[in-house]
Amino acid sequence: MTDNPLVLGVDLGGSKILAAVVNAKGEVLSSDRRTTPAAKGPEAVIQAMLSSMKRAIDQAAIKAAELEAICIGAPGLSNPETGVIFTSPHLPGWKDVPLRESIEGKMGVKTLLINDANAAALGEMYFGVARGARNFIYITISTGIGGGIVIDGQIYAGSTGTAGEIGHMTIDSNGPKCNCGNTGCWETLASGTALAREARKRIKSGAETSIVDYAGGDIDKVNAEAVHKAARRGDALAKELIVQTGYYIGVGLASLINIFNPELIIIGGGLSSIGDMLLEPAYKVAEERAYRVAFDSVRFARPALGRNSGVIGAAAYAFRKIEKSKK
Amino acid sequence: MTDNPLVLGVDLGGSKILAAVVNAKGEVLSSDRRTTPAAKGPEAVIQAMLSSMKRAIDQAAIKAAELEAICIGAPGLSNPETGVIFTSPHLPGWKDVPLRESIEGKMGVKTLLINDANAAALGEMYFGVARGARNFIYITISTGIGGGIVIDGQIYAGSTGTAGEIGHMTIDSNGPKCNCGNTGCWETLASGTALAREARKRIKSGAETSIVDYAGGDIDKVNAEAVHKAARRGDALAKELIVQTGYYIGVGLASLINIFNPELIIIGGGLSSIGDMLLEPAYKVAEERAYRVAFDSVRFARPALGRNSGVIGAAAYAFRKIEKSKK
Repeated sequence: MTDNPLVLGVDLGGSKILAAVVNAKGEVLSSDRRTTPAAKGPEAVIQAMLSSMKRAIDQAAIKAAELEAICIGAPGLSNPETGVIFTSPHLPGWKDVPLRESIEGKMGVKTLLINDANAAALGEMYFGVARGARNFIYITISTGIGGGIVIDGQIYAGSTGTAGEIGHMTIDSNGPKCNCGNTGCWETLASGTALAREARKRIKSGAETSIVDYAGGDIDKVNAEAVHKAARRGDALAKELIVQTGYYIGVGLASLINIFNPELIIIGGGLSSIGDMLLEPAYKVAEERAYRVAFDSVRFARPALGRNSGVIGAAAYAFRKIEKSKK
Repeated sequence: MTDNPLVLGVDLGGSKILAAVVNAKGEVLSSDRRTTPAAKGPEAVIQAMLSSMKRAIDQAAIKAAELEAICIGAPGLSNPETGVIFTSPHLPGWKDVPLRESIEGKMGVKTLLINDANAAALGEMYFGVARGARNFIYITISTGIGGGIVIDGQIYAGSTGTAGEIGHMTIDSNGPKCNCGNTGCWETLASGTALAREARKRIKSGAETSIVDYAGGDIDKVNAEAVHKAARRGDALAKELIVQTGYYIGVGLASLINIFNPELIIIGGGLSSIGDMLLEPAYKVAEERAYRVAFDSVRFARPALGRNSGVIGAAAYAFRKIEKSKK
């Protein structure tokens, strides 16, 4: 490594791509954030990732060859060893995509793959709000819901690397169909996608609301952001829907508290930026539903690294991998 | 320790108490099994435990003073260090009961406490079907549903010792009220108690069935055993209800597979002795609902130690604790 080794961390989400040049202290030197063209399929998304990565590299005034590694935090189920993404509910058309190999070939830089929520958990553990924590869960609530489970200071990846799919625990066995094929998954009721779906449903059934004004007047373009904007301006339906989403977040939190008895739960991801209006009801419902002794031993926190948890964690993962391989 | 050190393992359940004298090889020398007088409260249950323990000791033709230790596998939430049971959904009236201290005082033998499902997981890991497994879950399905989570070859107890309450993950947020205070917990739909409740409901609403004949003609005495007996004689309603319970077992299994990506799931506990009629539908539903890659990497098994997993595991836990304390 050079005196100031750098890694390019990438956080691939169902809605956004974030690429950042990060040093070994977890400092972000440059970054690029753009929309994920998810609906256009894997090739388009990989192209957008490459453009985003190149821009982050340019902005850091370095060359790709100066990077120690690239590390991609990817959503869905993947094999961290081979770097193949098996499936990803919010990336239509992704089936057995050799993402690691593809990026490595195009960029000419050693590339690693890690689950996006695991990356964020590591970022917060090394540089953020989870420093010193041994047993905690990082939850990312955005298009879907992902989880990074840390047990005894280590990411718990399961027997074949796909553990942590907490967004796909069933919280309502009669609930909505999920992109993953299951029914009533947590993320079908408590994600940004769920919030937007409920808003569109209510608007179409004639509810009085200003939500659609924040989506350019087009019902089909109503997303979680539009609901949030309307709620901030006092829209009653928008507020009601956010509280309802918070309720379902709380149902899942209670399950995780009962199962894991964690010391810390970090809630990040795009939807969580709504803040108290969403999270206060969630914490309240978790308190009502979880075992008292388990609830009392958990601390809730927002990510200290904000939306950078994933890219910083991905970079930290790469730095540690490189160090190990040199020993 | 003597040449053939012995531990008294106790498996305290909501329906049954099992006490057994076990040696360091995991062999059961003697045992006593009796009904838990759960409805009569903590004092009566502790008395029954003491009688059961004394009988197991007598049958082994030893004296209590010859035991290295007693180890109790207890249901519900407890602090393994202090030996206090905080609460236990199927033991009415148990609130902050200092069970370890109480038994130790009465028996005059060093006493340890462990969660019942954790004990069973250890039993299967040391002497049963989980030998060599690193990441697995032991599920006990009886009056309620308990879980012992093993991660990297160690019981995962969480930050304050209450982890593994998988029976209290919500699988139907609009489901039945649970004894724990939550709503739609897995065990409200997939336990022996749930099966019996559904049977009584259907009988009371006039369903044609022979189930009540296996409960001495008293609807209020219909339990899971009566349903199982009727099903074995071909009763259509009994069979339907068992398949329905299997369905809900499968819903929860899928969640656990998605969350933990375990290599092995062991299903024990009284209700699971129904066997294929209950478990085949459960596995099928789990396959339909879980992520394919995660489902394909899990193996399902019944406990190799049968109903002795808990007492053997509790004893093994005590032997290891004693060994450690001597180092």
